[in-house]
Amino acid sequence: MDQELPATGAWRAGDPVGERKFHNATPDRRFQLEGGGSLPEVVIAYETWGELAPDASNAVLVCHALTGDSHAAGRMGEGHVTDGWWNDLIGPGKALDTDELFVVCSNVLGGCQGSTGPASIDPGTSAPYGSSFPVVSIRDMVRAQASLADSLGIDAWQSVVGGSMGGMQALEWSVMYPHRVRSLALASTTAEASALQIAWSHIGRMAVEADPRFRSGDYYEAEPGDGPHRGLAVARMLAQVTYRSDEVFTERFHRTVIDQFQFSLEPTFDVEGYLDHHGLKLARRFDANSYLRLNRAMDLHDLGRGRGGVPQALKRVEVPSIVATVRSDGLYLPRQQKDLHEQLVAAGSDSTWVDIDSPHGHDGFLLETAALAPRISDLINKSQETL
Amino acid sequence: MDQELPATGAWRAGDPVGERKFHNATPDRRFQLEGGGSLPEVVIAYETWGELAPDASNAVLVCHALTGDSHAAGRMGEGHVTDGWWNDLIGPGKALDTDELFVVCSNVLGGCQGSTGPASIDPGTSAPYGSSFPVVSIRDMVRAQASLADSLGIDAWQSVVGGSMGGMQALEWSVMYPHRVRSLALASTTAEASALQIAWSHIGRMAVEADPRFRSGDYYEAEPGDGPHRGLAVARMLAQVTYRSDEVFTERFHRTVIDQFQFSLEPTFDVEGYLDHHGLKLARRFDANSYLRLNRAMDLHDLGRGRGGVPQALKRVEVPSIVATVRSDGLYLPRQQKDLHEQLVAAGSDSTWVDIDSPHGHDGFLLETAALAPRISDLINKSQETL
Repeated sequence: MDQELPATGAWRAGDPVGERKFHNATPDRRFQLEGGGSLPEVVIAYETWGELAPDASNAVLVCHALTGDSHAAGRMGEGHVTDGWWNDLIGPGKALDTDELFVVCSNVLGGCQGSTGPASIDPGTSAPYGSSFPVVSIRDMVRAQASLADSLGIDAWQSVVGGSMGGMQALEWSVMYPHRVRSLALASTTAEASALQIAWSHIGRMAVEADPRFRSGDYYEAEPGDGPHRGLAVARMLAQVTYRSDEVFTERFHRTVIDQFQFSLEPTFDVEGYLDHHGLKLARRFDANSYLRLNRAMDLHDLGRGRGGVPQALKRVEVPSIVATVRSDGLYLPRQQKDLHEQLVAAGSDSTWVDIDSPHGHDGFLLETAALAPRISDLINKSQETL
Repeated sequence: MDQELPATGAWRAGDPVGERKFHNATPDRRFQLEGGGSLPEVVIAYETWGELAPDASNAVLVCHALTGDSHAAGRMGEGHVTDGWWNDLIGPGKALDTDELFVVCSNVLGGCQGSTGPASIDPGTSAPYGSSFPVVSIRDMVRAQASLADSLGIDAWQSVVGGSMGGMQALEWSVMYPHRVRSLALASTTAEASALQIAWSHIGRMAVEADPRFRSGDYYEAEPGDGPHRGLAVARMLAQVTYRSDEVFTERFHRTVIDQFQFSLEPTFDVEGYLDHHGLKLARRFDANSYLRLNRAMDLHDLGRGRGGVPQALKRVEVPSIVATVRSDGLYLPRQQKDLHEQLVAAGSDSTWVDIDSPHGHDGFLLETAALAPRISDLINKSQETL
């Protein structure tokens, strides 16, 4: 597989911009990071759908998950290697109705699809950051998004919406900037990463770092095909399994063989081909250094850090919310969303529990849009009433 | 970590034998394999506890799981890098009471603790097999065990007992040699590997094979520290998570940090240190080529292959059995043991369902010995009555 791949799947300056727009979050000063240190320049790539109302009251922020990007809606095409990851929810007449709403999605800080990340050029050296790119936090991502909101003239979001790592950002928005969020839609997420999530994240990192082509993170000058694709593919494969469920795998693959049954170490079963395909697919479109750092940002996610714990932090949330869970999620377990919902209620918040009975596991937040859509619509209506 | 480790963690000729005895399963002909091909020489390492009755009626075969070996009972010591993996069940007065029973456990064919496997010397080349060692099946393992039984003068086992891959062997015993098994104790196992199990197995293989020190399987001549330890450690880490559960990880680790909280890619949380420890520990005591092949044998496990399907195969089982499940097992799911139990009952077998309410996940079959012990005792008593 290696020969066909560039050193990184990151979008880089000079690549087709597609639907991206760019915001400079550091027009006059360095961007300070929660973990200490700073970045001289932060650019945030984003996309928008619909029209911003003159009073800027109709803006919704959609936050993407680990391997997502700003292309939440739209087609695959020049500059965008995938279709919009939430196409079913964003558009005219959809739950996030772009006839009414102004929907914004930005690539996270530390990502690899147009926002400043490890594959970006460090102005101090005129070379890619690589291993020198710092660890960023969910709070750092949100501060960069707040700068984007400022530049768009959006004082408060009608709703901040996200699943998984996107839900972590939405939660941080509601606590960091409680007066800039009028409602909150959280799917398949958590107020703090669990030991299980950290475990999987760690193993993915170990797989990437064990790849000799990773070169401790300084692989951007490698020849085509000589990047850390194999390590990233292994990390993706294991993540892919944690995103699904036994039920889905059994129904889809069972013990079906690719070609013929063989007593061999070579891929024999359909599920092996599926994993290889997904590993390679991510290596084509993602950057290994970003993968490490975004996973780490999720590990470090703890809404209660420096705030006296999660229940105390949630007291800042005064807006209506939905907390959606997918029953078969084995990575972001229903107990985590249940805890979050109950803590929101205990903090005096108007939280609605959305229990999605689906076999799709963690990926349910991307796939069960039919179940999410009416609940998101209700939330949007509720937040409009409170204007 | 690499400098401290030999090229393989396999036991090799010349190492202390400890409690091992050895059986030559090929005194006069090559060992034919289910997948075609043959081995010129098969030696099976085994251990025994208790005394064989003059009529050989009191023998129990214990079958080990993926990374187990013949040391099912006993202490760590010269020749044995771990304590017996089922010490709580095997011994005087225990469920497998060695005052009454003659208990046998052999290292599987393809393993790395004394039985013929990839780290063994190929008599044809006088060098380790390495990449040339064939893929073996559960049925091959059982045929080698049957040869051992012959040599010990054991016509029929009072019980064949095993969890996980050990349960696969026990099941094959009952179908390949129905008249040589008088009862069957199956824990945390399945009649056929699921797509989910194959998926995890595949990813572990990819992690090992991606390690440049794996050298396609021919690493035995490597300098100390230059074996595929890193790939094997990643494979073990991911397996380790699938063996446990969210509940156990939360209780044991939650978000506790090793030293102090840091914004770093370096291991920060206790759960990361735990995984690194277990990865390294397996690399010290196991062989990467064996790991690949035993995992593959489990993938290929399908009790119904060539027998008209699982229900048809199970019609050969006429002895009492227990089928034990651990409710929190996310790798060998309770639905698999439930299916097996129901298929046994449907086939006319006296199967007893043992539902263990434990948070320990797949490793429950090693840890919940207090729950297993009385059920295994009952089964042994039952099989004695039928003598």
